[in-house]
Amino acid sequence: MSPLPRYRQLAQHYTQAIRDGTLQPGERLPSLRELMKLHGVSLSTALQVCRTLEGEGFAEARERSGYFVRQPRRLAMVPMDEPAADRPPDPAQFVGIHQTVSDFVTRRRWGEVHLDLSSARASPELYPADALRAAMMRSLRQRPQLLTQASPSRARTPFREAVARRALRAGMHLAPEDVLPTNGCIEALNLALRAVAQPGDTVAVESPTFYGLLQALESLGMRALEIPTSPQTGLSLEALELALRTYERIRAVVVVPHLQNPLGSVMPDTHKQRLVQLCRAHGAALIEDDTYTELLDADAVPRAVQSFDTEGGVIHCASMHKVLAPGLRLGWIHAGRWHARVEMLKFAQTRMNEELSQWAVGEFMATSAYDRHLRRLRETLRLQRERTADAIAAHFPAGTRINLPPGGLQLWVELPPGTQAQALFDAALEEHILIAPGTLFSNSARCDGFVRINCGLPWSPALATALKRLGELAHAVAAPRERRAA
Amino acid sequence: MSPLPRYRQLAQHYTQAIRDGTLQPGERLPSLRELMKLHGVSLSTALQVCRTLEGEGFAEARERSGYFVRQPRRLAMVPMDEPAADRPPDPAQFVGIHQTVSDFVTRRRWGEVHLDLSSARASPELYPADALRAAMMRSLRQRPQLLTQASPSRARTPFREAVARRALRAGMHLAPEDVLPTNGCIEALNLALRAVAQPGDTVAVESPTFYGLLQALESLGMRALEIPTSPQTGLSLEALELALRTYERIRAVVVVPHLQNPLGSVMPDTHKQRLVQLCRAHGAALIEDDTYTELLDADAVPRAVQSFDTEGGVIHCASMHKVLAPGLRLGWIHAGRWHARVEMLKFAQTRMNEELSQWAVGEFMATSAYDRHLRRLRETLRLQRERTADAIAAHFPAGTRINLPPGGLQLWVELPPGTQAQALFDAALEEHILIAPGTLFSNSARCDGFVRINCGLPWSPALATALKRLGELAHAVAAPRERRAA
Repeated sequence: MSPLPRYRQLAQHYTQAIRDGTLQPGERLPSLRELMKLHGVSLSTALQVCRTLEGEGFAEARERSGYFVRQPRRLAMVPMDEPAADRPPDPAQFVGIHQTVSDFVTRRRWGEVHLDLSSARASPELYPADALRAAMMRSLRQRPQLLTQASPSRARTPFREAVARRALRAGMHLAPEDVLPTNGCIEALNLALRAVAQPGDTVAVESPTFYGLLQALESLGMRALEIPTSPQTGLSLEALELALRTYERIRAVVVVPHLQNPLGSVMPDTHKQRLVQLCRAHGAALIEDDTYTELLDADAVPRAVQSFDTEGGVIHCASMHKVLAPGLRLGWIHAGRWHARVEMLKFAQTRMNEELSQWAVGEFMATSAYDRHLRRLRETLRLQRERTADAIAAHFPAGTRINLPPGGLQLWVELPPGTQAQALFDAALEEHILIAPGTLFSNSARCDGFVRINCGLPWSPALATALKRLGELAHAVAAPRERRAA
Repeated sequence: MSPLPRYRQLAQHYTQAIRDGTLQPGERLPSLRELMKLHGVSLSTALQVCRTLEGEGFAEARERSGYFVRQPRRLAMVPMDEPAADRPPDPAQFVGIHQTVSDFVTRRRWGEVHLDLSSARASPELYPADALRAAMMRSLRQRPQLLTQASPSRARTPFREAVARRALRAGMHLAPEDVLPTNGCIEALNLALRAVAQPGDTVAVESPTFYGLLQALESLGMRALEIPTSPQTGLSLEALELALRTYERIRAVVVVPHLQNPLGSVMPDTHKQRLVQLCRAHGAALIEDDTYTELLDADAVPRAVQSFDTEGGVIHCASMHKVLAPGLRLGWIHAGRWHARVEMLKFAQTRMNEELSQWAVGEFMATSAYDRHLRRLRETLRLQRERTADAIAAHFPAGTRINLPPGGLQLWVELPPGTQAQALFDAALEEHILIAPGTLFSNSARCDGFVRINCGLPWSPALATALKRLGELAHAVAAPRERRAA
């Protein structure tokens, strides 16, 4: 990895000190002259340090007084409540997401969108386009038959090897043959669900959860039982246990252990272990969606849920879509004791994945450039999440609550009591801003007061203005009576 | 298109005359001297003409007498019987293909395969590897964000445009938006089936049919009702009508109207029209699998079944897998009145297809190089089918029957009465030759005396030897008692 420029190193040094609390909000930062002396750098480097700290929201310039540590407003926000887990979930709300999503899509088409904050998606410029393209071209040159020869069903590709190698870091022991490439994580989840459950069966899911999962379940004729989920630690094990005891025929449990979508929660290892035991005890398959793990701020990789399992009872699904190449549909599944059944279902549904992207991506993943890319991506997303959270803290009405997750692409925002996310969605769309209303994340009404805001776009004046305007709209929809009276 | 060399032009001239019957088997061909005079060519060109005709099986050299039109032995073979269509199909045999396919796969893994004649697949060298690769590289260069930007759900790609344009030739009127790219034709078929039928429903299929369809149905929990099918004209409409009247809940009918797999039959237009009427009258969706049409020997494109429909009741599925790029999983579906439902199911199952191959393949399809490739491919496959048929006619036991289809990748071979295809499969595998036993093409026992032989491999001495050996093995398994007595 090429060393950071000196000014970035120094900016990181001060950022760290602010994070650690060594430098407190309101405290004066060293002056330009002091920085030059302290670190033996030029004036222009010292200036770059201060401007970087300011740009990233850690410092503010006060006229004639220099730079001061900024009070991140988000720290003053109240975190969300933990979910109540003392009663079984409401079985009346098993299905219905197709209609909700259709409504969303229809409304979106009516409106003209200038700024899309609705998806969990990073900008293309955050991904290594040139390196990926070079890798694709190399594979095309080196393997002339990739386009004209059908892939044998058990082709050993660099992708399968790279996934197996990297899985070691999460405590998993896979052979490349255990890694079955799929058309994105969503195909992996579909295959997992079809392997372990039948139409009519009930599957426990986190609540809130991403609508893709609810759609997959509904289109497979399965019923989603929504389990309360903590914004900090993920799926409530108490609530799950209660549900497993109350309902028969819960065939599977689906979890996103790291950076759950939309909450951003991260499940502690002790929970993972208990979750595996619980599912085993009740004969439920455990399906782990590992899409976001590489977007965690820390360099250390937490253990996969699968790594706590010894009986092939956990199906592990993931993809390269959010972390490396959003333009490719390249995911994978490790299906434990359902491997043969999943392989058969995959063959019957879409045949084996094509090989070209497996060669290119697999070879890229085996280089240090992949980890360098991930570090840059994480750092950029962290800054964008923090600035977005700051803007929400500054502009949204009192009573708005957020949790700042330790990684990932989005913020889950709880609007003040009584505020309907749908009203904010409609008002925002009129001003060409698209957000994801909470209604998309549950078949029940429990998320009607939430919105999900994407943090994948590079910070810009237009984005800052849009978030400010979104806050004003939130004020308006939060107090519709006063507004009408005016 | 670059003009053919003179000797190929002349060879085609004589081939045509033999096909037309202008020159009869046994008749003497012009001598070398006569060819030189007649066509004003050199001795070496005249010699090349004769050798080409000999190489392609149209002429044989007799010592000191010159070249004679050869009696193609396959013409002496008895064509297969038409199926009986006067009683409803046997509903006892709805499912079971998974076990049959698993047995096949397991046995195949035991054996060491040197020559695979089991698939319906052409050699990679029959596809335009360089041109495809160049098209991919051009797309990668011209569209830097193809790998790093998620495809919008309604991206208008050159592939969708090229498919819509070419569909005109088959009498279909599609907008590019109607063409939904899929992961191969098999995903298109899965989506079509899921859109129109539920688990437990019955779907009428041709019998025999390709095991991929039977697998898809079984894995979706649907029941395949096998309708007798003519090796000449495809699905028996009498048998289908009887079935539609006898059974309730036949939700869909799946047909391969052109070059049916494995029969190679081609449905006449009058049948297509009646089929559309029949399905409409009985409220059954009609699913058309159009995978092989471009492999028909003729340059003229027959009308699609869909082109006879005016009410959105036909779902059209196809792919580029057999005709252009076996290394890509690029198919498409036009779902008629189920378009919105199919789009939703596609999104829930695998999201939109990635765009890269849609750009590369779409732009290639828009050039004249695509039609040149198709003409070459058809011509090569025709010769390979004819030589394979000749070899079977020469070496297989009396009572063997084949129909020579007007295009495509394979021959469907009926072994003499009482011969078990499974026995021939086992004996061939011991000698490292893989064939597809008829058992794979039906849930009933009605195809146990058939094998499917791939004709996609370039003719070679090894292939000739293998087909000869296969004939000897067929003799042996056809007369096991005599053999044991010896």
